[in-house]
Amino acid sequence: MARKIKPVSISSIAAELGVSPSAVSRAINNRAGVSEETRRRVGVLLEKYRFRPAYPASRLPRVAVVTGSAHLAPYSASVLSGICRYVCGGTISAAALVVPESGRGRLLDLVRDQQCSAVILIVPACFAADFPVLSASGLPVMLVDETVVFPGSGYIDNDSRTGSLEAARYLIGLGHRRIGYIVSRSATSNHRERFDAYREALAEAGIGFDPALAVSGIEGGGEMEFGFRAMRKLLSRGKPFTALMATNDEIALGAISAAREAGLRIPADLSVIGFDDNAFSAFIDPPLTTVRHDAEQAGFLAARAVDEYLQSGKPLPREILPTRLVVRSSCRAPRQGRE
Amino acid sequence: MARKIKPVSISSIAAELGVSPSAVSRAINNRAGVSEETRRRVGVLLEKYRFRPAYPASRLPRVAVVTGSAHLAPYSASVLSGICRYVCGGTISAAALVVPESGRGRLLDLVRDQQCSAVILIVPACFAADFPVLSASGLPVMLVDETVVFPGSGYIDNDSRTGSLEAARYLIGLGHRRIGYIVSRSATSNHRERFDAYREALAEAGIGFDPALAVSGIEGGGEMEFGFRAMRKLLSRGKPFTALMATNDEIALGAISAAREAGLRIPADLSVIGFDDNAFSAFIDPPLTTVRHDAEQAGFLAARAVDEYLQSGKPLPREILPTRLVVRSSCRAPRQGRE
Repeated sequence: MARKIKPVSISSIAAELGVSPSAVSRAINNRAGVSEETRRRVGVLLEKYRFRPAYPASRLPRVAVVTGSAHLAPYSASVLSGICRYVCGGTISAAALVVPESGRGRLLDLVRDQQCSAVILIVPACFAADFPVLSASGLPVMLVDETVVFPGSGYIDNDSRTGSLEAARYLIGLGHRRIGYIVSRSATSNHRERFDAYREALAEAGIGFDPALAVSGIEGGGEMEFGFRAMRKLLSRGKPFTALMATNDEIALGAISAAREAGLRIPADLSVIGFDDNAFSAFIDPPLTTVRHDAEQAGFLAARAVDEYLQSGKPLPREILPTRLVVRSSCRAPRQGRE
Repeated sequence: MARKIKPVSISSIAAELGVSPSAVSRAINNRAGVSEETRRRVGVLLEKYRFRPAYPASRLPRVAVVTGSAHLAPYSASVLSGICRYVCGGTISAAALVVPESGRGRLLDLVRDQQCSAVILIVPACFAADFPVLSASGLPVMLVDETVVFPGSGYIDNDSRTGSLEAARYLIGLGHRRIGYIVSRSATSNHRERFDAYREALAEAGIGFDPALAVSGIEGGGEMEFGFRAMRKLLSRGKPFTALMATNDEIALGAISAAREAGLRIPADLSVIGFDDNAFSAFIDPPLTTVRHDAEQAGFLAARAVDEYLQSGKPLPREILPTRLVVRSSCRAPRQGRE
């Protein structure tokens, strides 16, 4: 004899939980005005009864695209472009949240307020304080260019380590032994990975790491201004170096400008390698050797991942996109006697 | 004797219009699922009874920030940063809509679907087909860097004409008579204004406009790639020129790259002026002379304008922000015999 299946509805779930049908509806529709605990309990029953309500017909599910800086750098703009390219396809929509310092630690409130069903974090490290609450919320969360993992999260990262290793080995192969390094002030773990890979490449070539050749943490201005100041600081230390690496192209451009001011020719007196391959990098003088990774595609894939999760429950991916060295004209072998 | 005031409620408005309370609620809360005609009739009664419902306590009113290109240029990113700077203050929220070609002509549907109470258009000319329907919707609409006006709209523009006049006069003052010009393919009326002002400056100096020195409309790639190709095309015509203007800095950078490829030195052989003052412009070699306008501030002011309109009914502004020539090192007097 077939078991009789009890029909499941918003009312029946409300009755079972002892809450109002409106609270259940709010939880199902990702609206504000219901506690996280009730959301969780509703979620358990939805799962138990395999009750998957259709999205409200009038509205696409919305993904919160969150970044922590008030300054939209070329990098964040590329990621955002990729997200928009996917979203324009039409099965999800996006709300962009650029969250100031003061909003950190209460990110979930902002996401709930925007009635979002999913979260994509750009520069996720800014929101480390929010990870436990986001994780407990049960919302799908995609991290772009970070490999931190918490329950409910996935990521699209880039292979910063391999890219930076390749760049450093390229300089070492040209004959450079004294290679300066400028690390972005950005909190992204990518920048740390790039710096670590540079040290790894030095070590494998038997070159000691000299802290006097590395700069980070100078306050003020955008990334190019930072690169300019960091290069001045590096030059002021009086320690010779024949090549420079930077954790992004904006810093490299600022550093080149400071080097020029100091009378250095690129690449005759100093070789320079950036990271990211920004739009300007092929057009500046000299065209910049850099490491390319596809931030736009990372955004696209992150948006597709949350959409597929929302539509069919497909698990969030943990994917690392390749990087590759793009050789242009900003590097050459050091002049004899200067290496 | 005091007249008895009939209490106004969603139910009473619904009864008066012969529609459901839910339709009135949807109209008041800017939700999808109610006709434009019903929205209009609800609006008339809200006005008649001076019934200003509080915003739903759980949610900030949302402004749709709309741009037409899938590629977020430095310019759009600056406007967006300014909007985010205001929005982070916390009395409104924003949904970013990057609308592909196929979405044009149905912008209001997208805005309704996002439950937005106001619209900010970046590169508004992309959405000319939507202006009549947006205007009829009664939603407040702010245009950034455009002076088109329709009922219900306001704008924050920049004074492109004065900026471009000043730039062209500067070159003419240095002794240039043959000045090339590259016009962006962007639909913004600003670019047309900049080009027109260049012709105006030529005319006032008694210099005939030579169409062989102007380029526009080359397909493919981003703005820098466009500038690179446009410059190659200009050089291939074999008509000499000693200076170049471009409607933005990205085009100028691409053009400088093509000029260098052709063996021209900047500014010894060719002076170059851009427009916008992008982040890279002060750091490239040579630092670029350009016209600065504050796109970030334009975004901030547009967001503030819709917020003040929503909060207190303050009329939308029609404001033109100043521009100014920023002289760096990319221009000098033409060499004797070449002017």
